[in-house]
Amino acid sequence: VSARAGDLVELHAFGLPDVQAEQPAVALALDEAGISDLRYPISFDVGGQPQRTVATVALAASVADTVRGVHMSRFVEALHEWHDRLSVEGVLALLDDVLNRLGAETATVALDFPVFLERTAPVSAGAAFVPYDCRLQGEVSRASRSMTLTIRVPVTSLCPCSREISDYGAHNQRGTVEISVSLRLDGVDARVELGELIDLAEAAGSAPIYTALKRSDERFVTMNAYENPAFVEDMTRAVADALRRDERLLAGRVRVVNEESIHTHNAYASVAWHR
Amino acid sequence: VSARAGDLVELHAFGLPDVQAEQPAVALALDEAGISDLRYPISFDVGGQPQRTVATVALAASVADTVRGVHMSRFVEALHEWHDRLSVEGVLALLDDVLNRLGAETATVALDFPVFLERTAPVSAGAAFVPYDCRLQGEVSRASRSMTLTIRVPVTSLCPCSREISDYGAHNQRGTVEISVSLRLDGVDARVELGELIDLAEAAGSAPIYTALKRSDERFVTMNAYENPAFVEDMTRAVADALRRDERLLAGRVRVVNEESIHTHNAYASVAWHR
Amino acid sequence: VSARAGDLVELHAFGLPDVQAEQPAVALALDEAGISDLRYPISFDVGGQPQRTVATVALAASVADTVRGVHMSRFVEALHEWHDRLSVEGVLALLDDVLNRLGAETATVALDFPVFLERTAPVSAGAAFVPYDCRLQGEVSRASRSMTLTIRVPVTSLCPCSREISDYGAHNQRGTVEISVSLRLDGVDARVELGELIDLAEAAGSAPIYTALKRSDERFVTMNAYENPAFVEDMTRAVADALRRDERLLAGRVRVVNEESIHTHNAYASVAWHR
Amino acid sequence: VSARAGDLVELHAFGLPDVQAEQPAVALALDEAGISDLRYPISFDVGGQPQRTVATVALAASVADTVRGVHMSRFVEALHEWHDRLSVEGVLALLDDVLNRLGAETATVALDFPVFLERTAPVSAGAAFVPYDCRLQGEVSRASRSMTLTIRVPVTSLCPCSREISDYGAHNQRGTVEISVSLRLDGVDARVELGELIDLAEAAGSAPIYTALKRSDERFVTMNAYENPAFVEDMTRAVADALRRDERLLAGRVRVVNEESIHTHNAYASVAWHR
Repeated sequence: VSARAGDLVELHAFGLPDVQAEQPAVALALDEAGISDLRYPISFDVGGQPQRTVATVALAASVADTVRGVHMSRFVEALHEWHDRLSVEGVLALLDDVLNRLGAETATVALDFPVFLERTAPVSAGAAFVPYDCRLQGEVSRASRSMTLTIRVPVTSLCPCSREISDYGAHNQRGTVEISVSLRLDGVDARVELGELIDLAEAAGSAPIYTALKRSDERFVTMNAYENPAFVEDMTRAVADALRRDERLLAGRVRVVNEESIHTHNAYASVAWHR
Repeated sequence: VSARAGDLVELHAFGLPDVQAEQPAVALALDEAGISDLRYPISFDVGGQPQRTVATVALAASVADTVRGVHMSRFVEALHEWHDRLSVEGVLALLDDVLNRLGAETATVALDFPVFLERTAPVSAGAAFVPYDCRLQGEVSRASRSMTLTIRVPVTSLCPCSREISDYGAHNQRGTVEISVSLRLDGVDARVELGELIDLAEAAGSAPIYTALKRSDERFVTMNAYENPAFVEDMTRAVADALRRDERLLAGRVRVVNEESIHTHNAYASVAWHR
Repeated sequence: VSARAGDLVELHAFGLPDVQAEQPAVALALDEAGISDLRYPISFDVGGQPQRTVATVALAASVADTVRGVHMSRFVEALHEWHDRLSVEGVLALLDDVLNRLGAETATVALDFPVFLERTAPVSAGAAFVPYDCRLQGEVSRASRSMTLTIRVPVTSLCPCSREISDYGAHNQRGTVEISVSLRLDGVDARVELGELIDLAEAAGSAPIYTALKRSDERFVTMNAYENPAFVEDMTRAVADALRRDERLLAGRVRVVNEESIHTHNAYASVAWHR
Repeated sequence: VSARAGDLVELHAFGLPDVQAEQPAVALALDEAGISDLRYPISFDVGGQPQRTVATVALAASVADTVRGVHMSRFVEALHEWHDRLSVEGVLALLDDVLNRLGAETATVALDFPVFLERTAPVSAGAAFVPYDCRLQGEVSRASRSMTLTIRVPVTSLCPCSREISDYGAHNQRGTVEISVSLRLDGVDARVELGELIDLAEAAGSAPIYTALKRSDERFVTMNAYENPAFVEDMTRAVADALRRDERLLAGRVRVVNEESIHTHNAYASVAWHR
């Protein structure tokens, strides 16, 4: 016979031992304790519009050296409270909420989710969605707040060397421009839109990526890519050069990966900076 | 200097060679040609309510032995047309649309997406979402239609052998009950709801999975699991036994996987049937 | 205080209840019960030479309707016995061993592993390894034996349409030619070498994939690909056409996937046949 | 007609333009440019014995602000030279080789691979392999060398809270103790063996993981786990406490992840330190 909720519900009122509140065997403070790999439906602000998508969430708090463990259910409760109104500001509010629910020194989050933007093909103007993978990593304490936004923008890249040394043709492939920027959190003037980062990344590639291309579009992107060859090093430099001068950013990192069409491995380049 | 859409747009009107329409070098009909691994935002009907989620899509058509290739952009156009009103019926309509756009004998789809249901904890009644991975695989031709629905339901399983042979304790773990059913497509009476399959799967496990559990809930699920030990073989049989008698189904398969807590590998069992 | 092996070792001699040997609650025979996702070091015969690699293994047996469950440890014991001398024949011997250890009607295996072949660049002749993902799926019963060999061969593919409609350039990308063949198991004459399947797949692509290419090689593969454009449909047909006439094979399937450089999704084609 | 290596081979002698050696459009030095996601067969020293396994490799060099790009094939050539004699020292030698081949300021590597150790079950003493995922990350410049070793050790963990608040049973699950340590590279006295880290991790869990367990073993590990409950916080602290006093290490990080049997998400804790 299975236990039934009815038999046990009185325990709810009386309470049960709080094992997490015990003294730890080792008096060592922890940077983070929490939950990870939680898939959750969220609504995230994209250019002023809420977009429904699916996130993978890690949410944690620091643990003092006098406390054995955190109450894991509180992270889920906080996320459930905020899941349908997330944005950079919403994520900070979620972290403040976690800080209070847990009574912790610091709270941290990592939120991975795809954003979809409707893009129109360059000649036929047909519309379809392109996915952009995003990540928000934030940390809030009583004294400080930080937030890093990462976006991965797919591009086509065409190899300058292959084009130069060959009588015809040039190998080209899917590339990904990954941009990570540490945001200033001091007001509307410092706001960074996903669209800005996508534009920068696409301008650095040989041609943008589209989901639906008719023949007239395919002709356009083929020739466009051939006219704009770019190494991973070139793309990395072009994007980093634009961003490292941007006063809205505290720090940044650009990493470009090419899924080389002539190899089974990838080529990549990366550079990080801070102001 | 890069090519610009303006320079090339006149080609749109005049047309370009249709390479796909050529005769193939080898006169062999193909089962499927199309697109795969396309991530797309969709709305899917869950118990009468549209739910926004993110799908990974494969969409294809058969190719006659006289035609070299398919026009890949048409699959995206069809998906874009239907993406915000999908359901079992909506997917069939999408396949009919593909059949017409491509002029093909058969059209096939595989749609993978998570569905989130808000579940309440067994004692505290706190609410949070649980993810259920779903897959719809369909095929439509001029003469026939078929659709297989797959859902993966997470459960806790507790090992009957470990419990029986030990003086105390029993190893338990995350398990997944994967149910695939071939649907009859002849009307409302044959409709199968995701909730029915989830209930069956959870009843076969040692305890359901919840996202947020307070201590009173944790006590409940711990004891509940201990009172309901189940091997992968037991869970597979319990679910299959219920479904193989279900007249709404043409065929089915149950596969249960346990992420054994005492190993790094999994244990599984499976059985398939058709009427 | 933790239990120690010494305290419990006497139980080994006396035995413990055999819960798996009980009658099942539902008298339903199962197709498969066993282990999966077990990573194991193996040695696999490649062209007469044993190659050390790492496999992911699923190994299972059927379960009669009178038996509750299988003894999972026996699969590991059988695999440990055979892991360093695997080949098509060695896998059949492993399945015979499982059949005997479990006393089952049928035993099944799925073995996924990469094989590495040293390839020399087409001009510079520099050597490096190329990975080829393989899968062996086998089933043995008292009355029958079957084995399917799958190999995934990376190739470069260049789009015939893009080349034809563009004044210069052509999009190209990594593609994968996946070949699955059901082997006749009646002797040396029916043996199929991995190298044969790799050659067929590479001949169907626009250019082979190499791991190390100097500039002279890159020029060669760039121009080679431009001269040999191929759709996924073309590659699928070329490989299937060669294999469906091969009397050593009982059945087969070819599936080619292109990681389109102008999209984030893939293009694919597939065809299956049997004799 | 396809190009043949014969037609092009003379170009090898005469040389082709060196596009990578050009001035970059943006005079910005890059941290890393190289290859990633290359699967390669390697031999790695485990406790004095070379073990054949399969690695995923990233290998890169810094790029000066006066050079457009790196020659990617040189990374593969260096790896091919060293792939069958890797160890901590061997990886440093590989990096030195890369530094020389590329003429770069710094060279970096990330090498991910499983190591398999044969373990004997605690009562039956049956032997089977357990996989341990390892990562080596190194950086070498003219002036400095650093190396971080990461190992992921699977354990069983049993929840102290669940045990305390329940009349019987306790939820338990697969956990992973991930240990990252920055190695001192100044001689034999500072050498750290994988086996030491595995022992520490297993001692912190509720019970070790084995691949093959007979019933007597299963009884042992079930009861052993019940007698040694441990939160992710407890395990993290126990391992970190032992390592932060270890004078052979410059810095370290411990991260423990529990694949909670009562949830679909994980619980984790982490702490980092340096001397």
